[in-house]
Amino acid sequence: MAEKKKVEAITSRDEDFARWYTDIVKKAELIEYTSVKGCMVIRPYGYAIWENIQKILDGMFKATGHENVCMPMFIPESLLQKEKDHVEGFAPEVAWVTMGGSEVLEDRLCVSPTSETLFCEHYANIVHSYRDLPKLYNQWVSVVRWEKTTRPFLRSREFLWQEGHTIHATEAEAIAETEQMLNVYADFCEKYLAMPVVKGKKTESDKFAGAVSTYCIEALMHDGKALQAGTSHFFGDGFAKAFDITYTDKENKKVNPFQTSWGVTTRLIGAIIMTHGDDNGLVLPPAVAPIQVVIVPVAQHKEGVLEACNELKDKLSKRFRVKLDDSDNSAGWKFAEYEMKGVPVRIELGPRDIENGQCVVCLRCNGEKLFIPLEGIEDAIEQKLGEITQIMFDAALKNREEKTYVCHSTDEIVKCLEEKGDGFVKAMWCGDEACEDAVKEKTGVCSRCLPFEGEAVDTKCVCCGKEAKHLLYWGKAY
Amino acid sequence: MAEKKKVEAITSRDEDFARWYTDIVKKAELIEYTSVKGCMVIRPYGYAIWENIQKILDGMFKATGHENVCMPMFIPESLLQKEKDHVEGFAPEVAWVTMGGSEVLEDRLCVSPTSETLFCEHYANIVHSYRDLPKLYNQWVSVVRWEKTTRPFLRSREFLWQEGHTIHATEAEAIAETEQMLNVYADFCEKYLAMPVVKGKKTESDKFAGAVSTYCIEALMHDGKALQAGTSHFFGDGFAKAFDITYTDKENKKVNPFQTSWGVTTRLIGAIIMTHGDDNGLVLPPAVAPIQVVIVPVAQHKEGVLEACNELKDKLSKRFRVKLDDSDNSAGWKFAEYEMKGVPVRIELGPRDIENGQCVVCLRCNGEKLFIPLEGIEDAIEQKLGEITQIMFDAALKNREEKTYVCHSTDEIVKCLEEKGDGFVKAMWCGDEACEDAVKEKTGVCSRCLPFEGEAVDTKCVCCGKEAKHLLYWGKAY
Repeated sequence: MAEKKKVEAITSRDEDFARWYTDIVKKAELIEYTSVKGCMVIRPYGYAIWENIQKILDGMFKATGHENVCMPMFIPESLLQKEKDHVEGFAPEVAWVTMGGSEVLEDRLCVSPTSETLFCEHYANIVHSYRDLPKLYNQWVSVVRWEKTTRPFLRSREFLWQEGHTIHATEAEAIAETEQMLNVYADFCEKYLAMPVVKGKKTESDKFAGAVSTYCIEALMHDGKALQAGTSHFFGDGFAKAFDITYTDKENKKVNPFQTSWGVTTRLIGAIIMTHGDDNGLVLPPAVAPIQVVIVPVAQHKEGVLEACNELKDKLSKRFRVKLDDSDNSAGWKFAEYEMKGVPVRIELGPRDIENGQCVVCLRCNGEKLFIPLEGIEDAIEQKLGEITQIMFDAALKNREEKTYVCHSTDEIVKCLEEKGDGFVKAMWCGDEACEDAVKEKTGVCSRCLPFEGEAVDTKCVCCGKEAKHLLYWGKAY
Repeated sequence: MAEKKKVEAITSRDEDFARWYTDIVKKAELIEYTSVKGCMVIRPYGYAIWENIQKILDGMFKATGHENVCMPMFIPESLLQKEKDHVEGFAPEVAWVTMGGSEVLEDRLCVSPTSETLFCEHYANIVHSYRDLPKLYNQWVSVVRWEKTTRPFLRSREFLWQEGHTIHATEAEAIAETEQMLNVYADFCEKYLAMPVVKGKKTESDKFAGAVSTYCIEALMHDGKALQAGTSHFFGDGFAKAFDITYTDKENKKVNPFQTSWGVTTRLIGAIIMTHGDDNGLVLPPAVAPIQVVIVPVAQHKEGVLEACNELKDKLSKRFRVKLDDSDNSAGWKFAEYEMKGVPVRIELGPRDIENGQCVVCLRCNGEKLFIPLEGIEDAIEQKLGEITQIMFDAALKNREEKTYVCHSTDEIVKCLEEKGDGFVKAMWCGDEACEDAVKEKTGVCSRCLPFEGEAVDTKCVCCGKEAKHLLYWGKAY
């Protein structure tokens, strides 16, 4: 019975992408639902992916001089209200604590949806002189936003993330930080998650509540919908003014410092699923896969097989995350199980292989099967894991390129999406918010970002026909 | 001005222990207060200690087969109420979310004070067969308990912790897990925090709400007050019954499994401060010190000094967490600063040392100063860090032994504490709760634990004089 359940087919990806997604998060045992609507259990296999993401990103943050801290999870309503745009953006979607024990709170507390206000209060306390700057802080926490419609990893009422919050003496330094962290995110997504991203800037209407500008990385999922994978915000000195953060500069003048914030969330796990997954389940990039190599013994009851498998496991475990499945499930069940779980490399080892001093290596990303000598297999696996990342990146890039369309009018956008399906639309924009809204209304796609790279595809606005100012990426988004 | 602030003296430890403690948490930059009462900012230096604790403990948990997961932070009131003792223990001290956005919640949510109920709900979903057992789960999260009186690290409304939650096929296996994790905690405290602990069992009146039995480790602080440093609970099948968790055993019968939970919190940082700190500030055990070695250049403007310091830093950084302070603060300021921050080893390196091919090494734990040749210094430092841990452990053990008293009557307890000050009182107990309460009322000390080791010190109960059943550790507690 347990065996039967595991090999149960999942919905086909091309048939019903949304259901395929939900099937995977459940059947690969990434999450389980709870009785709290919009909140989920992240199960060991899903959480291990997040731990790997954390470990790599945390290393990148520390290498760029950042330190971890921990702010309270609660924000008093009075504190949240100090920055006008910020409170307008977040107050409608927070969870309110109104009672502590049996005591009704005078100043109710929201469960932090993001911690700018807490960092500002703290900076006002600890920043006094130019010698105290910069502060380059980050925290790994759980935050809450009271979303109406929720989907595992993509949009949930509670999610895990990191939020960087930095404060600098000069505007130029803060802008450089905002750009640097966007580049860290882009590098991480491309090198470790094998997920190509477009780097750009949000339009005015789409930026973070309280920011001067919001930079973002946008990825295209297999179904042609866009996913915002990370954001980095430049705040200018707006928050500093609202929270009365000042420092004495070298000329002994009191001035306001400049701030940034930047974050990525567990939605990256959703992005991995929708970028790389297929009809057999998850396909995990080696860098974040909880199991990088699974060893499946063939004819494991035969003499010497399990010994050889254990020996191979010990050898590979020195460099990779390895699992040997010597359970009494059938080899077929095991193949299906680890395909569902997206394990990058499967090694099959049986009596004949041992005799020949080799093993069968199967790559999850493309089904390739090859024989590799047991002698020196560590180096061969290392090389294969690198190749897998490249193969996955190339496939995702190809998907994005095939689904990126250049359009010159709103009619063309409608026709193009009808004929070719969802994707990124590259089209010019005059910079007028009315046109941004009109495009969305007429075509269903909204502005994703003003890309940092890419040339003008027209001289006129895709909507009003007036002079175009910006190339814009448009798309339907998660 | 900044310089002056740093060397400001802290309250003497023997003069006012409570104020000394608060001075240290602020001046060593471990925490900062916020406008949310009872909630604090854990600053980079404080958080780095926690990260080191996490890293070591997480490794110990994984080495004993545990996996990390993440439960929601909210518990619906209806779910919290399923286990009678548990809800009675926790409901009075939780924070209640009653609104999400502008919507009033029908079933209000408490911010999790501990996650037994969520784990039980999850186990009911995923445990069906004996093949699904055991589940050995842990999570690192932040929890909230609405405490009236709060003190940084020791008792705060929000605190960081890990909570292990396991479920087993048999009672014996669950009890073995409870004991194993208590031993993991004790080993961690003694080997890595240099903090001796007494292992034992809580009395009935003092056990966790919903537990069959609670095991604990108790440490004695420098002032003679006890601190519960970690707990491990055996639940029997009580939670399983309340939450209808069943599995089909090998004989195809439906039965209830057995559970445990266990946790340590950021209060361990408070324990480190109060076990090892002195009038110059923090004294950190090497294993969790954010900076293990600080290099202070002497006459750093002289030719070759900074080069030699950087070379030494590069060499040591391969094995230790090292900081070179080449700021323009005076050497005296730097000495005071890193003593306040409890850095285990300070190395001074000046022109004469370089000439002699040596450096001055000062140990924070006892002020010892010695010359060590630069050649092969890595091994010498490694050895010193081990010695430091032992010196710190021995000093803490000596303090505990000096402050552990054997008493035979409540009058003797009162007199002993008056004369000698606070400490552990070892005294016999008949097992009657009335006597436990009476001792507390008459003497001010409450029961800490029934130790797993230690021989009877009398045949009669310290309170009623009837036949004694247990040796008990008593004390005033944080």
